[in-house]
Amino acid sequence: MEAYPPQKTALILVDPFNDFLSEGGKLWAYTRETVEGIALVKNMKALIGSARENKVQIIYAPHHHTTKGDYMNWKFLSPSHAGSKNTTLFEKGSWGAQFHPELVAQEGDLIAQNHWTGSGFANTDLDFLLRMHGIEYVILAGMRANTCIDSTARYAVELGYHVTLIKDGIAAFTWEEIRATTETNFPNYGHAILSTEEFTRIIKT
Amino acid sequence: MEAYPPQKTALILVDPFNDFLSEGGKLWAYTRETVEGIALVKNMKALIGSARENKVQIIYAPHHHTTKGDYMNWKFLSPSHAGSKNTTLFEKGSWGAQFHPELVAQEGDLIAQNHWTGSGFANTDLDFLLRMHGIEYVILAGMRANTCIDSTARYAVELGYHVTLIKDGIAAFTWEEIRATTETNFPNYGHAILSTEEFTRIIKT
Amino acid sequence: MEAYPPQKTALILVDPFNDFLSEGGKLWAYTRETVEGIALVKNMKALIGSARENKVQIIYAPHHHTTKGDYMNWKFLSPSHAGSKNTTLFEKGSWGAQFHPELVAQEGDLIAQNHWTGSGFANTDLDFLLRMHGIEYVILAGMRANTCIDSTARYAVELGYHVTLIKDGIAAFTWEEIRATTETNFPNYGHAILSTEEFTRIIKT
Amino acid sequence: MEAYPPQKTALILVDPFNDFLSEGGKLWAYTRETVEGIALVKNMKALIGSARENKVQIIYAPHHHTTKGDYMNWKFLSPSHAGSKNTTLFEKGSWGAQFHPELVAQEGDLIAQNHWTGSGFANTDLDFLLRMHGIEYVILAGMRANTCIDSTARYAVELGYHVTLIKDGIAAFTWEEIRATTETNFPNYGHAILSTEEFTRIIKT
Repeated sequence: MEAYPPQKTALILVDPFNDFLSEGGKLWAYTRETVEGIALVKNMKALIGSARENKVQIIYAPHHHTTKGDYMNWKFLSPSHAGSKNTTLFEKGSWGAQFHPELVAQEGDLIAQNHWTGSGFANTDLDFLLRMHGIEYVILAGMRANTCIDSTARYAVELGYHVTLIKDGIAAFTWEEIRATTETNFPNYGHAILSTEEFTRIIKT
Repeated sequence: MEAYPPQKTALILVDPFNDFLSEGGKLWAYTRETVEGIALVKNMKALIGSARENKVQIIYAPHHHTTKGDYMNWKFLSPSHAGSKNTTLFEKGSWGAQFHPELVAQEGDLIAQNHWTGSGFANTDLDFLLRMHGIEYVILAGMRANTCIDSTARYAVELGYHVTLIKDGIAAFTWEEIRATTETNFPNYGHAILSTEEFTRIIKT
Repeated sequence: MEAYPPQKTALILVDPFNDFLSEGGKLWAYTRETVEGIALVKNMKALIGSARENKVQIIYAPHHHTTKGDYMNWKFLSPSHAGSKNTTLFEKGSWGAQFHPELVAQEGDLIAQNHWTGSGFANTDLDFLLRMHGIEYVILAGMRANTCIDSTARYAVELGYHVTLIKDGIAAFTWEEIRATTETNFPNYGHAILSTEEFTRIIKT
Repeated sequence: MEAYPPQKTALILVDPFNDFLSEGGKLWAYTRETVEGIALVKNMKALIGSARENKVQIIYAPHHHTTKGDYMNWKFLSPSHAGSKNTTLFEKGSWGAQFHPELVAQEGDLIAQNHWTGSGFANTDLDFLLRMHGIEYVILAGMRANTCIDSTARYAVELGYHVTLIKDGIAAFTWEEIRATTETNFPNYGHAILSTEEFTRIIKT
């Protein structure tokens, strides 16, 4: 099994927003089934605690916070953009755009620029920040399995990182979306799939 | 339905190699079921003919042609890299690395640099060539649905293109892989899904 | 002479901060000579007015706003990073990090994510925002000629844009730095060099 | 003075083609003055020898090899593209597109994909290859100081590398172009400037 040198490893937390993870969030009706079913917040909290304890860099990769004027005069909108626009998803300044209260950033954590679509790397400084901190191994957790998580993982491989997916550290709208990521797609290109328990055990050694 | 201005549209053909598409190819045992089942070569040929007839730019996005020394001294290999290395996939100079005889390039077609992993855009000049030819709409066909096609489509959206997937213009190792792309993933971020017949009809008008 | 279709053209304003352009700014002692000598603020104001009048998209490409914790634990600092750190350049929330009062953004203008080093495109959403607004021609003005302006121009060409430099719309620490950009470097790779007066005349026609 | 861990360091050789560096080359009339004046081939040879001896990875970053059909139907050409087209610079298959006979690649060296414009990183796999070999420090030598070398150096910094310029390992069309790079521009963003002699001494220790 792969050893993760803590000083070269980062835990990337993708979109841990209230709109995704908390009762009352704009997408809660869609995400509740798998977020609760997989105990996502509990697992992400365990990952964060383990990372902090072992000096693994934590970095947030947050989606764009929508404001009213966004997407005006765009040539065309992808379904992802149209959905964000129509629901003012993760609305700037709103509770829904805050990180879940049990998953908030602390001093020493990094927060990358907000991404507009799926990949936390695309059109942001996520890669640059990781490089400047000497990171070679990335651990992925957060939302949503087959969109932002899958895209961020694909980019990470193309950028030369060693990429690990936490299989019970991600959720989605349906169990099928999670399976598409963990069983059908990621094993073709990603380097390792671990459970939260496995990662927290391995990183200690 | 979207209109495609032909001079702003490109048909991207991903990895139409003999190793994927022809009897005797190194992956034929895995791809035959869906390649034949979906009539991939016939459909790609129809797409290419239609593109040529309507002055739609054709561009190939080919995977790296493997040679013996490749992947030596790499820090770590993704499963995709390990697979290419172990089978000397699309071996440089071999028949398996040639485009399927019914899908070969003609004068005026473009061929992007070879990609190392999944996305035809990552670490290649595919984006640059499309820009220099004024392309804003890309149509995706080829192999393999949930790896290179899905990755190339995700990158295209992040790069600002309008992205159309030809649902019977892609194949994979299993029908489930195709469904993961066409039903579970692409509809979240891509702009349009069309059949070969639909595209060839729309582009004429 | 090149015609600039207004709806495909953007004016990119690089780092028009008080720290660069205003008396009392942290770098004013270094920039005053050329900023005043070339009448930079007056010219940028004319460019902005002309862009607004002719429906040319304005987009700001601002440098990172420095905060205390920045650059901690970085593997190594480039002179640009070290300088920003040591002077807390464009300090977050400070007057120095505000745009010059005569060059402020208005509704409809775009503001790209902040860049960490030289190029306004590197590790930001500048390219993506330009794409989504259909921009193919970029006009460059701002600070500092041989660092951010030259880098942003080089990236723009590599990304497939038509790139115009406003020769009296940029300043630096010395006249030699400006000449290195306008006479020695840019003519090798950029598409056009115009004066403010030439641009404002051409864009009207 | 910076120490360079050999296994994390790469020597990037930019465009060491006969057309640039050899009598009879298409640009020899322009480059002879500084190539001979700075003893470029001798210095690059010393750098290569030193790199090989100390297990520093050598990687070539070659410009596009021009063929007749190139640049057809491009939206617009930068002066760099127009020049390559008009002179069929580094013509594919020609002597001029071969590396200078004293600077040829050996087994174990890497050759990145060809770049279309200035930066060896733009639209190529140079970054990816460096990452997969664990490179964090890049040493730059080759042609031409204020175009490809300066662009490649700027990209390297934005990508998170430690960047060293060999001041007598580059040449150009004029001494002023070299000074623009070594004195006016690079010191603002690059990490170190060394002579060939200094680098070959430091890397041994």
